[in-house]
This record gives sequence, C-alpha cells and structure tokens, in this order.
Amino acid sequence: MNLRVRFAETDQMGVAHHSAYIIWFEAARVEWLRARGLDYRRLEAGGVSLAVSAISVQYHRSSRFDDELHVAATLTELRSRRVRYRYLISRDDEEIATGDSLHTPIDASGRVIRLPSVWLGALQKHVMT
Amino acid sequence: MNLRVRFAETDQMGVAHHSAYIIWFEAARVEWLRARGLDYRRLEAGGVSLAVSAISVQYHRSSRFDDELHVAATLTELRSRRVRYRYLISRDDEEIATGDSLHTPIDASGRVIRLPSVWLGALQKHVMT
Amino acid sequence: MNLRVRFAETDQMGVAHHSAYIIWFEAARVEWLRARGLDYRRLEAGGVSLAVSAISVQYHRSSRFDDELHVAATLTELRSRRVRYRYLISRDDEEIATGDSLHTPIDASGRVIRLPSVWLGALQKHVMT
Amino acid sequence: MNLRVRFAETDQMGVAHHSAYIIWFEAARVEWLRARGLDYRRLEAGGVSLAVSAISVQYHRSSRFDDELHVAATLTELRSRRVRYRYLISRDDEEIATGDSLHTPIDASGRVIRLPSVWLGALQKHVMT
Repeated sequence: MNLRVRFAETDQMGVAHHSAYIIWFEAARVEWLRARGLDYRRLEAGGVSLAVSAISVQYHRSSRFDDELHVAATLTELRSRRVRYRYLISRDDEEIATGDSLHTPIDASGRVIRLPSVWLGALQKHVMT
Repeated sequence: MNLRVRFAETDQMGVAHHSAYIIWFEAARVEWLRARGLDYRRLEAGGVSLAVSAISVQYHRSSRFDDELHVAATLTELRSRRVRYRYLISRDDEEIATGDSLHTPIDASGRVIRLPSVWLGALQKHVMT
Repeated sequence: MNLRVRFAETDQMGVAHHSAYIIWFEAARVEWLRARGLDYRRLEAGGVSLAVSAISVQYHRSSRFDDELHVAATLTELRSRRVRYRYLISRDDEEIATGDSLHTPIDASGRVIRLPSVWLGALQKHVMT
Repeated sequence: MNLRVRFAETDQMGVAHHSAYIIWFEAARVEWLRARGLDYRRLEAGGVSLAVSAISVQYHRSSRFDDELHVAATLTELRSRRVRYRYLISRDDEEIATGDSLHTPIDASGRVIRLPSVWLGALQKHVMT
C-alpha cells in the first residue's frame, strides 16, 4: 500500500516518529488482506482477532512529512496458532525500514485459539517464505 | 492533573501537536473523576459511555517536549443526556490552552441513553458553572 | 480526500477515537493545497507555518475501523494573519462530523507574521464563504 | 516510571494498542535520564539526538484502559555510536511486555556522529549488562 507521512506523525527531529511505522505495518496488513479478497473486519466479526505478540523494526533511513511511502507486507509463516508478517517500507528506490510482526489468534475474551480453518485455507496459498 | 509532554507528541514545528491536547483533556476527565472517588471504568463496565459529541480548543501558547503541564477540568453542565466540561491547560503561570467538551451518554450499542441516576447524583455536587 | 479508518485509530468503544478527526482535518488541508498546485512543505521550507490557533469538531455519527471516509476541506477565511478552514467528514451519504480550524501564520521562531503575499494571492481565488 | 493507560491508547479489542508501548519506552528513557540528573532536552539543545535505529517488543499480556503500569528502562550498551536500552513493562507483579531499542547519535542534519564524551562519561556508570 502507499501512504503519505502525515504532519501529525512527525516529531521535533523533523522526521516521522518511529512509532508511526508500527501503525503503517498494521494498515499494510489490512490492505494485504483486502487485496486477496479477505476482510479483517469479517475475521473480527467472527470473534477472532490476530493479537500482536511481538514486533520488530529496523530503521534504515528517516522519512519526512508528506513523503509518499510504499509499505509491502509479506505473510512469512502461517500456523493455526502463529502468524508472521515481514515488512519493507520504501520511498522510490530507497529502503526506509524493515520489520516483522508475530500474531496469535485470540477470541473475544483474549484466550488463544486456533485460527479457523477457513482462514487457514484462504491464507495458505499466500505464504512466502 | 500534571503531565509531561512526550517526545512522540511533538511535531516538526518543535511543539506539541494540537491533537495531543484533546487526549490530555480526556486524561484530565478520568483523573477528575478519580479525585472525586469515581471511576470511569466502572461507568463503562455498567454499559454506559460518555461519547464526545463536540469539542473545541483555543491554543494560546505552544507547549514543548518535556514541559510539565497542568490540565484542569471543570464540570460545567450536567443533565441526563448532556454533560459538559471546560479545560484550562497551564505551564507555571502561563495559560497554554483552553477548551470545552460536550458528551452524550450512550449504551454499548451506541444508542443515546439517560445518564444513570446514581451517576447524576454523584456528579451533581461537582458542577461549577 | 478519502481515507480508511486505521485499526490504531479505534478505541475500546469500538469507534474511531475523537482525536483522530483532528489529524484527518490536517491531512485534508495538505491534500486541499496539493489539489490546487500548492505544497505545504514549500510554505514551511520558506520559514512559514500555519499554526493552529483554534479548532472545533462536532461529532454527528461514529465511524468505525476500515470505514472509508471522505474529508472535505473548505477555505472559508483568508487574511494576512488569519486563515480559516471548515470541514465535513462523510461516509457515503452520511454526515459523520463537521469542524472548523483557525490558523495563524508564524515564522520558525514562533512569532506571528503576515502570510507572504505570494501565498495570499495563490489562495485568494479558493476562498468559499 | 509509572503511567496510566490512556483511553485514547486503547483499540477496539479493548486493550492498549501495541504501538503505545513504543511511546511508553521513549517516555521511560526520558525519565531514566532525569532520575540520573540528565536531561534529554539538553542533549538535543546541544545538537545531538539519539535516533532510534531498531526496536523490538514482546507482548506477554495485554494491558487495559486505566491500568497503572511500571516501565523500567535499563541501559544495556553504551558506545560512542551505539546506545541500547532494554525495557520491562509490568502491572503489579505481572510482566506485560519486554523490549529493546537501539540508538544512533545523530546531529541536527541527521548525520551519524559520536556521542559527546561528556555524555559518554555521565552515562558510563549506569550501564547494566
């Protein structure tokens, strides 16, 4: 997905604050699903959330207000209790940041559950290791 | 309540972003209740939320990273379907911002309801017009 | 401009947090300028910022995760020391929120200045009262 | 440092959004410095910033609105071009999250520099490996 760095996302160093990247990763996951005909709202409506259990970001270059960034998400691991994405944020040909997020399927009360098999099946063909 | 301006709340103008003030108002409402023996979590646990139906802020001076700010909330109107707060943010003796928020009691499905009488009663003596 | 409500913008009431609207207004101002061939980065590169001196929002309906919203900005007042925008956020045909922001041109040290005449000239034809 | 989970920091899963933890880490670094007689504003006033070059978080338990959290920061590595902190967020005796951040000293134009020796000296005795 593409996005513009918002003014509110900058900090007094004149660059996008490092916490914004986490939010861009999340937005990219949602768009990644949509591009494959899947809808994260529908997953949640069915009582399943993909809680974030770990995240990491490596910041290679700073990004600035109004920069147009591309955020690529890749599903790198898919198991019934463990989903992993990798990210690459770029601006034109420059690598801005990379990252990784690990997710655990939980139900509405926060308990760890197995990802429903219909979702496992729909996602399986999109795993890229 | 007192708070420190967080680094993440600054923007590239080198000041606290104007959206942060809205979040400080909210934090001040929660502390205002706590200081009066009331607990916003308990209100929500009872199925009642005070949705924000209008907000206004006047920014008089900028605030900066690590500034220690005082946020004073005052309950200025209390009716069963309408609650209003006024705010004053200051740094030492300087007025930084003022504001106003209007709230509507809603239930968990988002419908407008009357504020439960136990809450009306508990809040009544704290109204300052 | 159009935007999707981000997951991070929701709160535990299951709706977009009221502070997010302020950030959407800001993003809409930037896109409003861009659509007219103007670039807020260029204004700031010239040492001029449009500080927010007041803001107000009226929340008519809640918005939710992944809603596609349209944010319309209108320049309603333009003077050398005072700029005002009005906003309308909608989802399909529903009015979600309206608002208003007042801006003061300042220089890099935070002093109030006159908006440069080249900007006044460029903006004048876009004022809608 | 101690902090309360703000309402604005929750998301529609009813827990603090995972991006908030990154901001709490940062606030804890600032307070960690202050508790040792050091002032991050003074570092930046001298033209030095500690840019975040990598961050990781492991989320062990969720935290909720109004939870009182303790955020412990530990300086785990200190070199002239590389500073590392470790974090532990807890609620009473429960471990909520752990994390790690890596920092690079940069000047106002974003170039990597050596951390000034006066800062190296002041920080050296606080390193805990």
